[in-house]
Amino acid sequence: MPKPKTDSKERLIEAASRLFAQQGYQATGLSQIVEESGAPRGSVYFLFPEGKEQIAVEALKLSADRIRHLLHSTAENSDTVTDWIRRIAASMAQSLEESDFRSGSPLAAVTLDCVNEGNSSLGQACHRAYDSWIEDAAHLLQHKYGMDRAEAEKLAVSAIAAIEGAVILCRARRSTEPLSIVAERIAEWVP
Amino acid sequence: MPKPKTDSKERLIEAASRLFAQQGYQATGLSQIVEESGAPRGSVYFLFPEGKEQIAVEALKLSADRIRHLLHSTAENSDTVTDWIRRIAASMAQSLEESDFRSGSPLAAVTLDCVNEGNSSLGQACHRAYDSWIEDAAHLLQHKYGMDRAEAEKLAVSAIAAIEGAVILCRARRSTEPLSIVAERIAEWVP
Repeated sequence: MPKPKTDSKERLIEAASRLFAQQGYQATGLSQIVEESGAPRGSVYFLFPEGKEQIAVEALKLSADRIRHLLHSTAENSDTVTDWIRRIAASMAQSLEESDFRSGSPLAAVTLDCVNEGNSSLGQACHRAYDSWIEDAAHLLQHKYGMDRAEAEKLAVSAIAAIEGAVILCRARRSTEPLSIVAERIAEWVP
Repeated sequence: MPKPKTDSKERLIEAASRLFAQQGYQATGLSQIVEESGAPRGSVYFLFPEGKEQIAVEALKLSADRIRHLLHSTAENSDTVTDWIRRIAASMAQSLEESDFRSGSPLAAVTLDCVNEGNSSLGQACHRAYDSWIEDAAHLLQHKYGMDRAEAEKLAVSAIAAIEGAVILCRARRSTEPLSIVAERIAEWVP
């Protein structure tokens, strides 16, 4: 029995998200996404008539939603901001190690590959994805941890920047040490 | 009169560095590097017999050396670590604006594109390039600003991670605000 369309769609988005996180947007061809997904080749033209960029917009949403889920699930188990940041960093360090430092920072990888198309739907999707992290982190800092709004927004931007940069350093140096160092430093920003 | 070989070599490396910073490693073809450089097509096979990866290793060195130069030149005019960090961030913000947010973070762009080749000469060049920034920054923090060695190294790693991440956020959001916010926060780490 052929797989239902929704399953093919999810598998294509999932495969694209994984490949972009590993090797960036430009290196990933539509045919590699189809092959990695296991979805029938014909389905991609039906499901994503605009091709790779259209899949990428959905893949960015998926990657962003995963981090948003991580932000919320780690906050549930963390009584303090410091605990929360440590849990987020530990989870990212684990993902880096599990992928042998080949995967991580999916938004950064696509952002740096697509900026010449800054006003494209993909450039806008990168922008929205980062905004969604910042908004969710700021919301949690404000409503769960009692920070005032302006402070919460600044801390959210700074912590997300520092963690994104740390993940890239971890990949370059094939070590999770930068994430540990940065997580301890971010804790110093907590009022 | 044909251009001397050394000039062609520098122009190829310079063009590659600019293209990687704008669009990543994978999207940049050897023929685009040659075209952008204005060097004679034949010279590339003579100067870089191993092709794009060999040019990229040199381009990473060039990009890394530019940031190292920035670290030293800004330190010369800065009496305090806080001043120094503000000057670095201001210079990076200016570059982002001048390129209409199309260029920046050349190491991150190549790192995220080439990690599947983690043990390749290119992967190692990314690692060395980040190490050179961290070493230079830690050296300045220790010898110019009087921090102890362990503190200087941790601050160097954290500040470089935070600034790299901020540059990526700036590119995604087409705004220099993340860099300003992060620079003020890094200042809080200074003992």
